[in-house]
Amino acid sequence: MYKIELSSDEVPKKWYNINADLPSEIPPPKNSEGKNQIEYLPKIFSKGVLEQEFSTERYINIPNEVRELYMRMGRPSPLFRAKGLEDKLNTPAKIYFKREDSSPTGSHKLNSAIPQAYYAKKDGIERLTTETGAGQWGTALSLACSQVDLDCTVYMVKVSFDQKPFRKVIMGIYGGEVHASPSKYTEAGRKTLAENPDHPGSLGIAISEAIEDALDNEHAYYSIGSALNHVMLHQTIIGQEVKTQLEIAEEEPDVMIGCVGGGSNFAGFTFPFIKDKIDGNSDCEFIGVEPSSCPTLTEGKYDFDFGDTTGLTPLIKMFTLGHDFVAPSVHAGGLRYHGMSPQVSLLKKEGIIDAKSATQKEVFKAGILFAKSEGIVPAPESTHAIKVAIDEAKKCKETGEEKTIVFNLSGHGLLDLVGYDKFLSNQLSSDN
Amino acid sequence: MYKIELSSDEVPKKWYNINADLPSEIPPPKNSEGKNQIEYLPKIFSKGVLEQEFSTERYINIPNEVRELYMRMGRPSPLFRAKGLEDKLNTPAKIYFKREDSSPTGSHKLNSAIPQAYYAKKDGIERLTTETGAGQWGTALSLACSQVDLDCTVYMVKVSFDQKPFRKVIMGIYGGEVHASPSKYTEAGRKTLAENPDHPGSLGIAISEAIEDALDNEHAYYSIGSALNHVMLHQTIIGQEVKTQLEIAEEEPDVMIGCVGGGSNFAGFTFPFIKDKIDGNSDCEFIGVEPSSCPTLTEGKYDFDFGDTTGLTPLIKMFTLGHDFVAPSVHAGGLRYHGMSPQVSLLKKEGIIDAKSATQKEVFKAGILFAKSEGIVPAPESTHAIKVAIDEAKKCKETGEEKTIVFNLSGHGLLDLVGYDKFLSNQLSSDN
Repeated sequence: MYKIELSSDEVPKKWYNINADLPSEIPPPKNSEGKNQIEYLPKIFSKGVLEQEFSTERYINIPNEVRELYMRMGRPSPLFRAKGLEDKLNTPAKIYFKREDSSPTGSHKLNSAIPQAYYAKKDGIERLTTETGAGQWGTALSLACSQVDLDCTVYMVKVSFDQKPFRKVIMGIYGGEVHASPSKYTEAGRKTLAENPDHPGSLGIAISEAIEDALDNEHAYYSIGSALNHVMLHQTIIGQEVKTQLEIAEEEPDVMIGCVGGGSNFAGFTFPFIKDKIDGNSDCEFIGVEPSSCPTLTEGKYDFDFGDTTGLTPLIKMFTLGHDFVAPSVHAGGLRYHGMSPQVSLLKKEGIIDAKSATQKEVFKAGILFAKSEGIVPAPESTHAIKVAIDEAKKCKETGEEKTIVFNLSGHGLLDLVGYDKFLSNQLSSDN
Repeated sequence: MYKIELSSDEVPKKWYNINADLPSEIPPPKNSEGKNQIEYLPKIFSKGVLEQEFSTERYINIPNEVRELYMRMGRPSPLFRAKGLEDKLNTPAKIYFKREDSSPTGSHKLNSAIPQAYYAKKDGIERLTTETGAGQWGTALSLACSQVDLDCTVYMVKVSFDQKPFRKVIMGIYGGEVHASPSKYTEAGRKTLAENPDHPGSLGIAISEAIEDALDNEHAYYSIGSALNHVMLHQTIIGQEVKTQLEIAEEEPDVMIGCVGGGSNFAGFTFPFIKDKIDGNSDCEFIGVEPSSCPTLTEGKYDFDFGDTTGLTPLIKMFTLGHDFVAPSVHAGGLRYHGMSPQVSLLKKEGIIDAKSATQKEVFKAGILFAKSEGIVPAPESTHAIKVAIDEAKKCKETGEEKTIVFNLSGHGLLDLVGYDKFLSNQLSSDN
């Protein structure tokens, strides 16, 4: 059996909230001195997601309308056995991967975009604003908005806007309005452009623009694609589906691996299994993999910091490289974030999960081996998980252990082929 | 139920050969005056596919190794109910679509690439040569070759090679060697370049180069992506799966729709159902949809003609626009072929299937409505089928009929976004 499919009606009925099971409490967010960022929150987030953000309920019902949209967008996603890769590695390990790349927008991001759009619509809002770097999140939110009949404004980091024109086209197909950030449409954008008309933009500035746009317009909310708990929560449908699928395959995972940027695909994939570990019912190992050029979990410090660059967000306790850290321009754009989900951070701090880092060359090499053996061209982000899955499978070859290794294929790489091209033609810098 | 999945072991065990059930015999291919193209065939095709090409056996066993590779590459593919599209159209019709876009290479082409690579390997061959226009077929054959450990040489029409660099990158990821055609590697290429060093290339020249390369190298075969009967045969796993899936959904199709270029996805999707119609057990309507700029079935003549431009192939009885017909450069590159599968041609001649044509603007408009409602960005080729499916659903709205409309989503459009961009920014010519 190479793929394990679930039928539409097996989409989970609840999200799993890890706040209920963490070994210690997440320190609440704080205002920075002389500011009151926490007061903003109800002006830019829907009642639904704000309630979820701080909830400690273990399971939260998925509204029927949201489940219906999950089904329409093709969920549950398949779990695959990577038999081709196992053969190429000649390993006794069994390798499985969850196919979040099979979403219509090509990544796991739609799992949170749909409920965020739904709850905004429910509050009578007309438009969502957001930022996007590589474009995966902006694409998912544009589609989700078209599904519930909301407008969508995406501030896309200018350098990506120029270098990744196709993401912009897809957002346009879904009806999203995309502005290169810094833009002339916000005070933050205009101020930046006045200082430097050729500013390449940054995720920090794009966040500032999207938040400002939502704060200034009472019919608009802001929407975020990672880091916050309601996003982790929505993504737990991934791990819950994997649980059912591994039961069908009669497997227990020994190692679960995901890439980490803000933490959302890793969290969604592992949290339902981490619960079992916390409960003492599993000794599975969990590994988050990040670029060695943006080593938040492996080299950052666990401290209060802003979620954005300019300090519009409250201070959050998390692993961080500092809110003014600028990661080099690696092709895994979705992993270039200075901070980390507070929940993922706490689990790392408590030693419940592990973290590793890998260089661009290592991960593209792993991505190509995967593509040749399984056919699917993985997103540069997802190749980080593949790299470590291959390492684990090779270890099994040495020790003879028949481990069950499961990783999350968070997205496909069909819109990120520039990086592969550079790797194949030896143009990738060997520094990061 | 939004998606109807089959498990890996439900991959069909036999291909269906429509030669056994055609209402009249396909006229055999002929040599052109003073030439003997038929003699070439065993030098460039494997024993396996040549036997299939002229077989009249109704069912042909799929070798276990090929079935295994189909499974590894994710087959069977899902059948989806397009509930979002039905809602947007407010139609009483039920619309289903087969997701050939979910293949790792993004189209149905892998269904024939895998057996062609398998049979070549079985004959002890080391390398396959082929041509590719838009790149879908070259991509599929590169992956299939990497699966059975064959080398793969792809002659890619130069204008596509330059304009679609990402297809080339994907072929490179799979290990395929890609040459811009006309190339310096063959006599045909060199001759063309000598006459015009800036020649943009054509499918006809690329075919000549690929055939010449195979003829000149005893360890190489040539491989083709459409038109010939063994290709149609391999593609019938699509329609057989759809049959099982519609039975699960308790549906009988009233209309089945596919786009047509050389005929392979349309044939694979419909032939198992056309058998029922020929047997008198169905009154389903079958519609092939082509670009109005390349109207082979709707305006071509049914006659003997070459399959390529320069006359290297035998003469084949088919609908044709003439082997020197040059279709305008529409974005549905996969449908720009002057000829047509002899089997599909005969069925049209006999009135068993119907054909329609549509303009670029019409099909992109349909593609965008589909993307907004179902999430998936369809290939420009596949939007032709979507356009007619929408027309049929609208007719049902007028008449109140609850027809079951099924179309084949032959591929996704993630590597063809230039056409969407031009449509959205009103830059598409209105001529074709």
